[in-house]
Amino acid sequence: MNKHTFDEAIALTGEYNNPKGSVNPAYQNMVGPFGGVTAATLLQSVLKHPQVKGTPASMTVNFLGPMQETDISLQPRMVRENRSNQHWIVEAQCGAETVATATLIFANRVDSWTSTELTMPKAPDYQELEPVATEMLPPWTQQYDMRFVSGNPLAAPEPDATPSESLHWISDRPARAIDFTSLCAICDAFFPRLFIHTRQMVPLGTVTFTVYFHVTEQELNELGDPWVLGHARASKFYGSYFDQTGEVWGSNGNLLATTSQLCYYKY
Amino acid sequence: MNKHTFDEAIALTGEYNNPKGSVNPAYQNMVGPFGGVTAATLLQSVLKHPQVKGTPASMTVNFLGPMQETDISLQPRMVRENRSNQHWIVEAQCGAETVATATLIFANRVDSWTSTELTMPKAPDYQELEPVATEMLPPWTQQYDMRFVSGNPLAAPEPDATPSESLHWISDRPARAIDFTSLCAICDAFFPRLFIHTRQMVPLGTVTFTVYFHVTEQELNELGDPWVLGHARASKFYGSYFDQTGEVWGSNGNLLATTSQLCYYKY
Repeated sequence: MNKHTFDEAIALTGEYNNPKGSVNPAYQNMVGPFGGVTAATLLQSVLKHPQVKGTPASMTVNFLGPMQETDISLQPRMVRENRSNQHWIVEAQCGAETVATATLIFANRVDSWTSTELTMPKAPDYQELEPVATEMLPPWTQQYDMRFVSGNPLAAPEPDATPSESLHWISDRPARAIDFTSLCAICDAFFPRLFIHTRQMVPLGTVTFTVYFHVTEQELNELGDPWVLGHARASKFYGSYFDQTGEVWGSNGNLLATTSQLCYYKY
Repeated sequence: MNKHTFDEAIALTGEYNNPKGSVNPAYQNMVGPFGGVTAATLLQSVLKHPQVKGTPASMTVNFLGPMQETDISLQPRMVRENRSNQHWIVEAQCGAETVATATLIFANRVDSWTSTELTMPKAPDYQELEPVATEMLPPWTQQYDMRFVSGNPLAAPEPDATPSESLHWISDRPARAIDFTSLCAICDAFFPRLFIHTRQMVPLGTVTFTVYFHVTEQELNELGDPWVLGHARASKFYGSYFDQTGEVWGSNGNLLATTSQLCYYKY
């Protein structure tokens, strides 16, 4: 069986203390690779580390600069291990440049009182919606099937829409079962809020990206459906930076992850 | 003029590459110091560094374990400097233990198209509201004057309230002009969402905390009013972790910061 392109893109070789990744042309963005796959590669370096225990609870990746070479060198380092969690830092270099840093918390999930405070947004079945036409967009978008309920930056704004909000179904293309790495990438696969608000493609880049994982590996395995529902909005565009907050829901109504990011822009 | 207790609490001594802070008893929490002041101390180590340029755009602090000693040793390190921003990592030790790590982005803010996407929540003037009685609470709460519009964990739940949401005015006590360090601390000064939802005090602790700053220093200086309005909610309580997202508004309607965090809990 051939490997999925996503698995190729986040594959690591070499020593677990200093694994090597490489930029996959299928996930290129306008300048450099899609940040979601870079983040997933950093996550993968911890997931594959022999000292790792538990599953990802949180991850913050800072994008420091353009990745101008194909080879990525990673240094995952466990900073501290507690009884119920582990703290990791990963630094990533391209050539002599540090291009990304990440802090991660891996948790030993314990049964507890549970409550989902948000209501899953109402959305038609993905089969009733049209895929976004990605032919004119950067390569990474072609690795996803995105079907917008609202806030499609390539369509005219809806009259009563909240200007920077969007709701879409998304699946890897071809379909691939959701795991922590693909969920991480999907959390960064929202189109930039500036595109949604202005319906213009302007220069921008994510500088920091956070994911909180709200599920166990078992729940991801039980999803069955590779389609998830993404909902996101901005709070403020100001002084060349804007933020985004979002949620990713399983089609079974399970809130899989919440995410935030800050982007630099020129507009 | 005496220093404000907050300024004492985040004061640093020694070399800028390895400054020392100390845990201030005024900001103690149930176990160890209030995380907001620890975060502000890490931020301060970058603000006071001679290489720093620009103002804070984002900050993520991970809390690795209890701070069991009074002295904190900090290592701020600039990982990369770009034309428009700087990336920093700070590690903090108490004795031999690493107790906190932070990644920060400092930005050279450039004029740009601006839009605030959220609407400031309606709230009565703080002068019309009662301060929370903090006598029975940990010391840090007594360093703030908090006046709840809704979601006061020490009062009975409102009949139609969203269970984990709260809205409150907050000011340092005594009043202190808002700057980046106090804004950072105030972003962590929301009572834990689990207390809001359950109206019970149960063991918990923040493991990671993110702030996006949406203002320049000049705008903070122009605020005039030390009172800010905090609005926060949880998305999900699950498997011994829950998240919080929030916003902090100036009384002039300026969205100063957005924030998220993940907490460990036993319940």
